[in-house]
Amino acid sequence: QSNTNLIRATLFPGDGIGPEIAESVRQIFKVAEVPIEWEEHYVGTEIDPRTNSFLTWESLESVRRNKVGLKGPMATPIGKGHRSLNLTLRKELNLYANVRPCYSLPGYKTRYDDVNLITIRENTEGEYSGLEHQVVRGVVESLKIITRQASLRVAEYAFHYAKTHGRERVSAIHKANIMQKTDGLFLKCCREVAEKYPEIKYEEVVIDNCCMMLVKNPALFDVLVMPNLYGDIISDLCAGLIGGLGLTPSCNIGEGGIALAEAVHGSAPDIAGKNLANPTALLLSSVSMLRHLELHDKADRIQDAILKTIAEGKYRTGDLGGTATTTEFTNAICDHL
Amino acid sequence: QSNTNLIRATLFPGDGIGPEIAESVRQIFKVAEVPIEWEEHYVGTEIDPRTNSFLTWESLESVRRNKVGLKGPMATPIGKGHRSLNLTLRKELNLYANVRPCYSLPGYKTRYDDVNLITIRENTEGEYSGLEHQVVRGVVESLKIITRQASLRVAEYAFHYAKTHGRERVSAIHKANIMQKTDGLFLKCCREVAEKYPEIKYEEVVIDNCCMMLVKNPALFDVLVMPNLYGDIISDLCAGLIGGLGLTPSCNIGEGGIALAEAVHGSAPDIAGKNLANPTALLLSSVSMLRHLELHDKADRIQDAILKTIAEGKYRTGDLGGTATTTEFTNAICDHL
Ligand SMILES: CC(C)[C@H](C(=O)O)[C@@H](O)C(=O)O
Ligand SMILES: CC(C)[C@H](C(=O)O)[C@@H](O)C(=O)O
Repeated sequence: QSNTNLIRATLFPGDGIGPEIAESVRQIFKVAEVPIEWEEHYVGTEIDPRTNSFLTWESLESVRRNKVGLKGPMATPIGKGHRSLNLTLRKELNLYANVRPCYSLPGYKTRYDDVNLITIRENTEGEYSGLEHQVVRGVVESLKIITRQASLRVAEYAFHYAKTHGRERVSAIHKANIMQKTDGLFLKCCREVAEKYPEIKYEEVVIDNCCMMLVKNPALFDVLVMPNLYGDIISDLCAGLIGGLGLTPSCNIGEGGIALAEAVHGSAPDIAGKNLANPTALLLSSVSMLRHLELHDKADRIQDAILKTIAEGKYRTGDLGGTATTTEFTNAICDHL
Repeated sequence: QSNTNLIRATLFPGDGIGPEIAESVRQIFKVAEVPIEWEEHYVGTEIDPRTNSFLTWESLESVRRNKVGLKGPMATPIGKGHRSLNLTLRKELNLYANVRPCYSLPGYKTRYDDVNLITIRENTEGEYSGLEHQVVRGVVESLKIITRQASLRVAEYAFHYAKTHGRERVSAIHKANIMQKTDGLFLKCCREVAEKYPEIKYEEVVIDNCCMMLVKNPALFDVLVMPNLYGDIISDLCAGLIGGLGLTPSCNIGEGGIALAEAVHGSAPDIAGKNLANPTALLLSSVSMLRHLELHDKADRIQDAILKTIAEGKYRTGDLGGTATTTEFTNAICDHL
């Protein structure tokens, strides 16, 4: 019953504003005639009454089979004892690299107008090992794990990305002056890979210094690669430079060529269901997904329409200082297609 | 032989540009008639031929006895196998809280003109435990340690600081959505202390979100308290907002009322000995030291003179876009005293 000329892609709309912004993607893909057929699954922090589950095996299988997907926000409750769904997806699907392009949006003014960088984050280990325990009362420890395998894999991805995207430099971000063994191993792996890419410049920057340089002069950076937690921190910092997580795409790369694009902002329960959400991050993530599928024409067309709509400034959602609804903003993008 | 009306304070000029900027402090304290007698000791990355040591027991004893000191930069060689001297001092002297005020300097323009915040960093444990090992070839782990004792101590310091410095709010920075046990314990301790200070507002902010908010709108924050590594990262980020580590003071607070103020920038070996270094961070740190000694008149006078000299802009060192030598800049400050 499914059209064989269509590419199947998994869609997890997610929690809160997720369904609304996913609808915006659907609409724009339809108007732009993107040859994609969505396979939608519910994954979220509420139990789905149809499956009695947060996350079914079928949902994971869908991504594994299609090798490509798009996910909306999923809330991570603090201190509820159960693990973040975002993390679960990363581990289950072995999504080893998280790629976040971050560039100043023409026409949307922030304090910075010269941002154009890519953060590539190791996405499976480091401080996210989940290994923590109480040693004695009042003394708790958590384990940061760095492996040669995961470090080489993400470094390889970063250099390959730099090379295939016309980027000049890769900066490895670390704190090896303190964590000589763990971050030391990460750097060692980056250096090994760097040697295979003599045409790409390579440098190492201590994380604290990196953050200082980023806020002083983000144009100093090009592609940044780093362990998990540093990636979490620096990618959000970078998003802040250009206006926030509502504007930045993200794509997770997994073993076997899987790509799961995602909006990394929160699920914004306060405005959920009110047609007020900004779909830009999910839309730009869907563009990343199209690029991964090498559908560059469609990707360009949609990206241009999004950027034009934001630059024009006539229809902007509340988070960008406007009063447009999600639908109005989406329609405006469709008009630019 | 020493004047009993003078307060003795330890001085570690440190590496690289350390001796030059320490000289600037000496000169200004003399002109401002600060009742301090310096007890100078060499601590640094070169072996001192007089003592055949990097760091002598006498140097540590000097701080313990005087309870107050000032230190210049000390280089932290990466991957040389020996531990950072900065860390050694923190551990040996039990310097449990690192306090970094960060405010926009009048007349020195950056992208931000509304920064006025204090980062208070736990300074003894966390990711800085020094506990790391290889599990098997290619798999390395490091331990992050959070204790109730150190967390309560730094939280208590932060709230006390807020209260005694007319601050309204304390934000605890964490990643307890991932490190539920370690950062969870840190937050629990902050909450306990917060209850004792009902007049101070208390909030909890996830570190990635905090970095995003800081670059978007630093005026959202007041006093920030956090575990070691987050403090390292965020204090540098904040320094970047107002121009860099060359402009921000720092003071370490230890058990038994010890205060060791320090310039946290690097030792800048490239310009060492050339009379080009900017002494501002060490000078403002010496002002923190004076405030700790409750010598507020002297502190105000010196701080005003520093800020006026920078605001005037006639004498600025190279890092601030000027051409003044360290001596010229120091003399200009003296003229404003
Ligand atoms: C929600 C949280 C678990 C997640 C993370 O820490 O990785 C988020 O901050 C992100 O960057 O995707
Ligand atoms: C030099 C380094 C060991 C140190 C740290 O990581 O604490 C520095 O960055 C600081 O902030 O004082």
